[in-house]
Amino acid sequence: MDFRELERIVVEFRDARSWKKYHTPKNLAISAVVELGELFEHFQWLSDEEILEAVKNPQKKEEVADEIADVIIYLVLLAHELGIDLDEAVGRKIRKNEAKYPLPGD
Amino acid sequence: MDFRELERIVVEFRDARSWKKYHTPKNLAISAVVELGELFEHFQWLSDEEILEAVKNPQKKEEVADEIADVIIYLVLLAHELGIDLDEAVGRKIRKNEAKYPLPGD
Amino acid sequence: MDFRELERIVVEFRDARSWKKYHTPKNLAISAVVELGELFEHFQWLSDEEILEAVKNPQKKEEVADEIADVIIYLVLLAHELGIDLDEAVGRKIRKNEAKYPLPGD
Amino acid sequence: MDFRELERIVVEFRDARSWKKYHTPKNLAISAVVELGELFEHFQWLSDEEILEAVKNPQKKEEVADEIADVIIYLVLLAHELGIDLDEAVGRKIRKNEAKYPLPGD
Repeated sequence: MDFRELERIVVEFRDARSWKKYHTPKNLAISAVVELGELFEHFQWLSDEEILEAVKNPQKKEEVADEIADVIIYLVLLAHELGIDLDEAVGRKIRKNEAKYPLPGD
Repeated sequence: MDFRELERIVVEFRDARSWKKYHTPKNLAISAVVELGELFEHFQWLSDEEILEAVKNPQKKEEVADEIADVIIYLVLLAHELGIDLDEAVGRKIRKNEAKYPLPGD
Repeated sequence: MDFRELERIVVEFRDARSWKKYHTPKNLAISAVVELGELFEHFQWLSDEEILEAVKNPQKKEEVADEIADVIIYLVLLAHELGIDLDEAVGRKIRKNEAKYPLPGD
Repeated sequence: MDFRELERIVVEFRDARSWKKYHTPKNLAISAVVELGELFEHFQWLSDEEILEAVKNPQKKEEVADEIADVIIYLVLLAHELGIDLDEAVGRKIRKNEAKYPLPGD
């Protein structure tokens, strides 16, 4: 699944439920924090080693994956509202990072 | 660009710079918050209408797009560390959402 | 209650339960995000006017107050771990803000 | 400094600059994330041990303290807008925590 297909699917899902009116930039920003908080709940009080161990459990891994997916879905919806093409944006940002942190041979 | 290609690109970028040692789950989680904060700086003190107006400026739009891209890149790196296939995870989460919020005819 | 009394109470609470070992800087930072996400859940999909209306309900108001308190408690615990005197820090930051944004007659 | 004095000071500061119009619940929530992101920037890529070492430097410590203070100031302003008495709220939340996690002898 690429960003354009993902955008199409989540916007279609949203419009079929008439939820567009709720999808203001700030509401979507706030929703991303809600989901990020739920993601972080899985990490709370665990060391990095314990987190890596915990996600070996398939159910736990799916719960964590669900939360990461939720944050991404809200970011895709936010980008949509702002008229941002994420496919282009992510590609451009990677090229900026490559220019900012060049490799010895570059 | 799909999630698997994006994962491949950002992991390759990271490994070429020997940054893997910094990419623990909690460091990547904290980095996602840093970038989210930078994204939210563009929204601070603006109404939703003013945000939508502001991103009509191509430079502003690119700045906002860069920050959304940065959050997504850290989430992709986090998913990678946790062994989560985002392509699968996002698809599954969308199907869960469809089951949770069925349409009248479903 | 001032910050020093609050710090004393929450550290005593923590030590009585032998939780100090969990209170690393990054764990407390992550916990602040968990609670902020729970706070934001009360604002999700509401307009500012609807939020102000919602907290007129005493139970809702207490739920929101609980989440703000939780974020503050984790910040107090984080400051404690870092050896930061919040009473001094907040006072100093207010003076910096006054210097940064002087009034016409200042 | 207690929460009521802090509230009085930051509201007075705000009103003297006619900034009340910007202080909607969602704007203050978003501002708290901006400052939390700036706080987390100081932790990014450091281990917990390195963070504790870094704040031994007085300048670094003051920078970190400033960011924690900023998050707290926005939470105090948010509580103010919602009519929440933080002194009461934090005290009540601590009593709830004591009831939720009783000590053996309690």
